[in-house]
Amino acid sequence: MKVAKFGGSSVASATQFRKVAHIINSDVERRIIVVSAPGKRFKDDIKITDILIQLAQAVMAGKTCDEIVQAVVKRYAEIAKELELPADEFLAELKNDLHRKMNEYRDNPSRLLDAIKASGEDHNARLMALYLQEIGLEASYVSPREAGIVVTDEPGNAQILPESYEKLYHLRNRRGVLVIPGFFGYSPEGNIVTFPRGGSDITGSIVAAGVKADVYENFTDVDSIYCVNPSIVENPRQLREITYREMRELSYSGFSVFHDEALEPVYKAGIPVCVKNTNNPAAPGTWIVAKRNHLDEPIAGIASDTGFCSINISKYLMNREIGFGRKLLQILEDEGISYEHAPSGIDNMSVILRANQLKEGKEQRILARIQAELKVDEVHIEHGLALIMVVGEGMERAVGMAAKATTALAQANINLEMINQGSSEVSMMFGVKEEAVVDAVRALYQAYFQEAVVGNEV
Amino acid sequence: MKVAKFGGSSVASATQFRKVAHIINSDVERRIIVVSAPGKRFKDDIKITDILIQLAQAVMAGKTCDEIVQAVVKRYAEIAKELELPADEFLAELKNDLHRKMNEYRDNPSRLLDAIKASGEDHNARLMALYLQEIGLEASYVSPREAGIVVTDEPGNAQILPESYEKLYHLRNRRGVLVIPGFFGYSPEGNIVTFPRGGSDITGSIVAAGVKADVYENFTDVDSIYCVNPSIVENPRQLREITYREMRELSYSGFSVFHDEALEPVYKAGIPVCVKNTNNPAAPGTWIVAKRNHLDEPIAGIASDTGFCSINISKYLMNREIGFGRKLLQILEDEGISYEHAPSGIDNMSVILRANQLKEGKEQRILARIQAELKVDEVHIEHGLALIMVVGEGMERAVGMAAKATTALAQANINLEMINQGSSEVSMMFGVKEEAVVDAVRALYQAYFQEAVVGNEV
Repeated sequence: MKVAKFGGSSVASATQFRKVAHIINSDVERRIIVVSAPGKRFKDDIKITDILIQLAQAVMAGKTCDEIVQAVVKRYAEIAKELELPADEFLAELKNDLHRKMNEYRDNPSRLLDAIKASGEDHNARLMALYLQEIGLEASYVSPREAGIVVTDEPGNAQILPESYEKLYHLRNRRGVLVIPGFFGYSPEGNIVTFPRGGSDITGSIVAAGVKADVYENFTDVDSIYCVNPSIVENPRQLREITYREMRELSYSGFSVFHDEALEPVYKAGIPVCVKNTNNPAAPGTWIVAKRNHLDEPIAGIASDTGFCSINISKYLMNREIGFGRKLLQILEDEGISYEHAPSGIDNMSVILRANQLKEGKEQRILARIQAELKVDEVHIEHGLALIMVVGEGMERAVGMAAKATTALAQANINLEMINQGSSEVSMMFGVKEEAVVDAVRALYQAYFQEAVVGNEV
Repeated sequence: MKVAKFGGSSVASATQFRKVAHIINSDVERRIIVVSAPGKRFKDDIKITDILIQLAQAVMAGKTCDEIVQAVVKRYAEIAKELELPADEFLAELKNDLHRKMNEYRDNPSRLLDAIKASGEDHNARLMALYLQEIGLEASYVSPREAGIVVTDEPGNAQILPESYEKLYHLRNRRGVLVIPGFFGYSPEGNIVTFPRGGSDITGSIVAAGVKADVYENFTDVDSIYCVNPSIVENPRQLREITYREMRELSYSGFSVFHDEALEPVYKAGIPVCVKNTNNPAAPGTWIVAKRNHLDEPIAGIASDTGFCSINISKYLMNREIGFGRKLLQILEDEGISYEHAPSGIDNMSVILRANQLKEGKEQRILARIQAELKVDEVHIEHGLALIMVVGEGMERAVGMAAKATTALAQANINLEMINQGSSEVSMMFGVKEEAVVDAVRALYQAYFQEAVVGNEV
């Protein structure tokens, strides 16, 4: 059986609902459907989720909310009307549900926000089930509570509890198509709690792992995952296949297709993921798998991200001092700083971290502590760093991978602030100044994907 | 003024004594001389220091020592005789001194070893002073106690105490040539304590820093420092100039010319070092300086060392876990392990360390602790690693340095286990399998020194 998740743009309008129904209809294995809330229909459209956030904020601010509630109801009503659904009861219940939550959580902002946001997915799943029934499918809405999605009780940051998987497995015994809203679960105390970033993807992944699906299909609005950010390289190569590890390393820095936490349940259960396009379901999409069949292309992709900084420390005879690195990392931990990498030389050590953690004097305090507690010769911070990851399962076996990258960067006249290769078997990391990152990624793309023999290509 | 230190081979025989005298005579600025014990005169010769170690061991074992004492006396007697010195008194005092120490420290092995070893340098300094006087120089032997070399009381591992420098400064006021034995100082309690590796170099460096010399001359038996180990590359390029930082990074891995601890006092005092050849004093030698004048050659040298291993750890979502790296380093610190580098990827971290630290089940214990305490997905250890350092002050400013190295290694078909660039401004580090290290160093030498424009060359 397959679990198919449809993202916001895939369920944004009646037209999209029809495409989804067609996709479900065309494969009897698609028995469990996870849906997002209606997303954008056009570039400047507003997502239902964003309207719902406005609603929650209005409640908290004690403002009148009728107009916002109307805007929410209108979006669903339009879809229902165009699909010619008998939706009066559905729309009345939607309105009641919003008002009920607005009252119940009026004095509890974080609960209110979670409950109101979650209703976007919840009612869309109900509407989808209604539509599928209307066109003659045996379909039913299944709430996350009924499905067994039990999560920790931390608003906006739900983590799945292990007992969920056993409960979810029983969904296999249900007849027909099951439609489950994404993005939230219920805590053991019975509260609605939303997942962090990538919410509906997480639901889909958890459900796929729970029911031991053969495939987790993730329907979105692109034909495939690209090997590089299409806003940096025009019409980049499409990936036919990528491994979990490759996806994880790429999603770390700028590949927003699939968030880490969404990948974990299927990765651990060994269930392949297929990323497909709702608007072009005939395209083969991109498979995320444990082991690639096509290894002729050692590099899977190139990702990049900006906003890093580097704390650079030097101290004569540093490497003789047992415990130096540990003490440095302890200072960062005390200050609540999560670091990315800590490469060291003989008398030098650098710590690379996301600069947005250094607010409100924290930078000065950390530098002062390093100076005072570690008695270093010099410490300074370098801002404006970008990290580039070149990722591929074939990298470890291929001689000359690093040479190709560094030569391409040198030819593009890009100075390398950092190279980190060898700690991961599937990636190399390069640090460059932020202003050089676009040129650097283009140079690497050129070297790995345009000069290479055509291999892992659709 | 100059402080000139003469190594073991420079003071091994009467012929060498004459060369030293000639060198001292040829420059009035050479006012303080530091001497080693007589070293090897030919390939299979034995150093005085090694005979003295045998002597100490014989005393500890309760064996008869007369023959060994005779062997020591004979070496000095031969030098004295060939130099036509009236040395009866000197030789009698040498013999008395050895017997006095053998008796005094009979029941204290580490003190005995230090005292006996130190007498090699001590009596050579006395003999050198005698010879310089004999040829008409105003010269005097100055003991480390008289000079003011006060050290910590740890046998075989003396560390200079800061009050020494002020005392040493007064040597500037003494007339004539002062001859000081290298390798040892006196603890505040009055014990003879020897320095760790590079002993006489340390004395020379401390004295140069104390008297605020203009130059610290280090006389040895090569014309210069080479840019790469001559046992790996035949007739490698000689270095005219190198910075303290470059020297430090090179000496870390295989450059035995100048030990770290010997460089520290002159580095901190900003005193330039000139490494010269006693057997060819006309050669310009190699200058070790704070700032190179010749930066046309960005790379100063290539060093390598074997005997490393890498603990490789992977754990899904490792980089989300605040404190992971710190906890790992804490385990190593608990086990008394000093690590070299700890590069990390997204879900991976490696720790590179010298394998000789992992004796007696420590390897298994550390792996088990990492597994149990950090709940990692996988941990394993990779033995047989070599590290190669490419070192140069010009590296940071030059685009393409890494490309040159990685391309050369790829062309030599060498797989890179690790690249670490960016933490140090003056070096890049490469990890390769031990069996590939010679080919790798040769390939790098070829790339940086044989294809490059001739620059930093004698």
